[in-house]
Amino acid sequence: MSVDLKEFLSYVAKRVDEYMLSKIVGEPSVLYQAARHYIVAGGKRLRPAIAIAVARMLGGSEEVAIPLAASLEVLHTFTLIHDDIIDQDDVRRGVPTVHRVWGVGKAIVAGDLLHSFSYRAIVDAVERGLDPEHGLRAVKVLAEASIEICEGQIMDMDFPTMERVSVDQYIEMVSKKTGALFEASARMGAIAARAPQSVEESIGRALRLAGIAFQIKDDILGIVGDEKVLGKPVYSDLREGKRTLPIIYALNNVDEGSRRELLRVLGNRNATREDFERAKSIIVECGAIDYSEKMARRYLDEALKIVESIDAREPSYRDLLKSLMTLMVERRR
Amino acid sequence: MSVDLKEFLSYVAKRVDEYMLSKIVGEPSVLYQAARHYIVAGGKRLRPAIAIAVARMLGGSEEVAIPLAASLEVLHTFTLIHDDIIDQDDVRRGVPTVHRVWGVGKAIVAGDLLHSFSYRAIVDAVERGLDPEHGLRAVKVLAEASIEICEGQIMDMDFPTMERVSVDQYIEMVSKKTGALFEASARMGAIAARAPQSVEESIGRALRLAGIAFQIKDDILGIVGDEKVLGKPVYSDLREGKRTLPIIYALNNVDEGSRRELLRVLGNRNATREDFERAKSIIVECGAIDYSEKMARRYLDEALKIVESIDAREPSYRDLLKSLMTLMVERRR
Repeated sequence: MSVDLKEFLSYVAKRVDEYMLSKIVGEPSVLYQAARHYIVAGGKRLRPAIAIAVARMLGGSEEVAIPLAASLEVLHTFTLIHDDIIDQDDVRRGVPTVHRVWGVGKAIVAGDLLHSFSYRAIVDAVERGLDPEHGLRAVKVLAEASIEICEGQIMDMDFPTMERVSVDQYIEMVSKKTGALFEASARMGAIAARAPQSVEESIGRALRLAGIAFQIKDDILGIVGDEKVLGKPVYSDLREGKRTLPIIYALNNVDEGSRRELLRVLGNRNATREDFERAKSIIVECGAIDYSEKMARRYLDEALKIVESIDAREPSYRDLLKSLMTLMVERRR
Repeated sequence: MSVDLKEFLSYVAKRVDEYMLSKIVGEPSVLYQAARHYIVAGGKRLRPAIAIAVARMLGGSEEVAIPLAASLEVLHTFTLIHDDIIDQDDVRRGVPTVHRVWGVGKAIVAGDLLHSFSYRAIVDAVERGLDPEHGLRAVKVLAEASIEICEGQIMDMDFPTMERVSVDQYIEMVSKKTGALFEASARMGAIAARAPQSVEESIGRALRLAGIAFQIKDDILGIVGDEKVLGKPVYSDLREGKRTLPIIYALNNVDEGSRRELLRVLGNRNATREDFERAKSIIVECGAIDYSEKMARRYLDEALKIVESIDAREPSYRDLLKSLMTLMVERRR
């Protein structure tokens, strides 16, 4: 039996959204509207899909996997709300950002609310039959991932103030900011299946690598992606002065004149569309996109190799997981 | 044997601070400095003291109670950082607020980091010998308290936009914003002692009531407190237009002229010291402070009655807890 990736993704989205929207309810209604805003707006639900695919691959029950999968998506959503405040972004998933609609103060609290609900969902998994030992393990995994996310976020914020950012520093940053939660997603699946700790660690390692590849792809789309497909303004990475992989590569490899031109545009909120287009050409022409694509592919291949080596109770779900990981790098949005 | 309250508070502060400062370490150092800023600046450590007093009263071990007590203080500290951003406060515990030193973006992330560490501390309690069932229970208690805190925070933010706020609405708000975490503190102590659920609920109820009394006292100090003793500017509640109990009472009980004068000053960031002093006289002279003091006392008495009815393994710690609760209402800062 083989599982269709597209069908699986829409099945996961349906189950996890149902769960999230039935739990994240309460008063004052303005708080819950703000907290549900990005959930209602859609999204790929990649992290829940990974958790559920891993759980199924290792013989776990969906009943328990769903709240654990939801805890990851809820945590992810909270970080998006806070990141959008920090980056002063106006649009996300085709809708105005939470702080643009409800103001910064309420957006901060809406994020905090979701952060709390992500732990509440783990308690739910135990109420649905997961043993408390594994429940506690899930709490540890989630807490440690979110600590890393905060660390990565601060590194990301500080990069624009640094004279030079190396590729190693970049990889460390995205490993924390993005890789950690993908690792947690895989671990949650393994926990739902009560897999041995060594399996949890291997699958976690694989998905951290895939998460790094995912972020590199995000960076690439931030330069050459299609605004309409992405649902958010292109060039926002350039406008915010982010040090993404293509930008780092370009800054470290172009001639001094082009480097100075790039630096003038990066983080310049008054830069024009023409400035951004000129910066984009510099980045594309120096080979930064090719370099980044190859780097993403290398991380993905390493991740797939690890997944291949893990004993699967249900091999069709291992194949599904591999397709999912490949999609993380081959997507257009 | 009787336990001296002052000695107990400084003992708790020492143990819990040691624990927090040994755990909340990492890179980037700027993130951890921001996160540790209010912890290093001091504070009363009331919530940990309640947790440890309850644990001891019910026969629990301190080894397990310390990380649970710390989880409450860490959560509380995270909410202070985010509240200060929302209220645009400049000073807390005698030091500049986190967002004033490191900017809003980093302050948001520093708060999020502490939020994550509060759950990490519960995992620690299990690693120190608490059984996973009770560990999971602690996670549930913390998550539900923090959900309530977010709800109370939004109510608090919305009150200034309302034509009239009733005392009942106020009590509901402070029950969530402040009472919930005091309830959680008592429950954590009961969990550390593996007390029966009925005991956990009673002691939790008692401390929620004491927490409401504590907040009313805070509101009183916000009008008639001594700036030097408080470590933060007096009149900030008036300047921010907060609907605290004395203010609500005054708005609902003074003549129309005084009411209009109060409304002109409330939330007016251009109001002068003289404006605030005039507002203060209106509030004091209409009996709002007396009313609030009596209300606080009524909540405290009800709370003490419940504590009195609970079977204590170590009665000296019940007496200590009662002194602690009384201090919550009789303090000057």
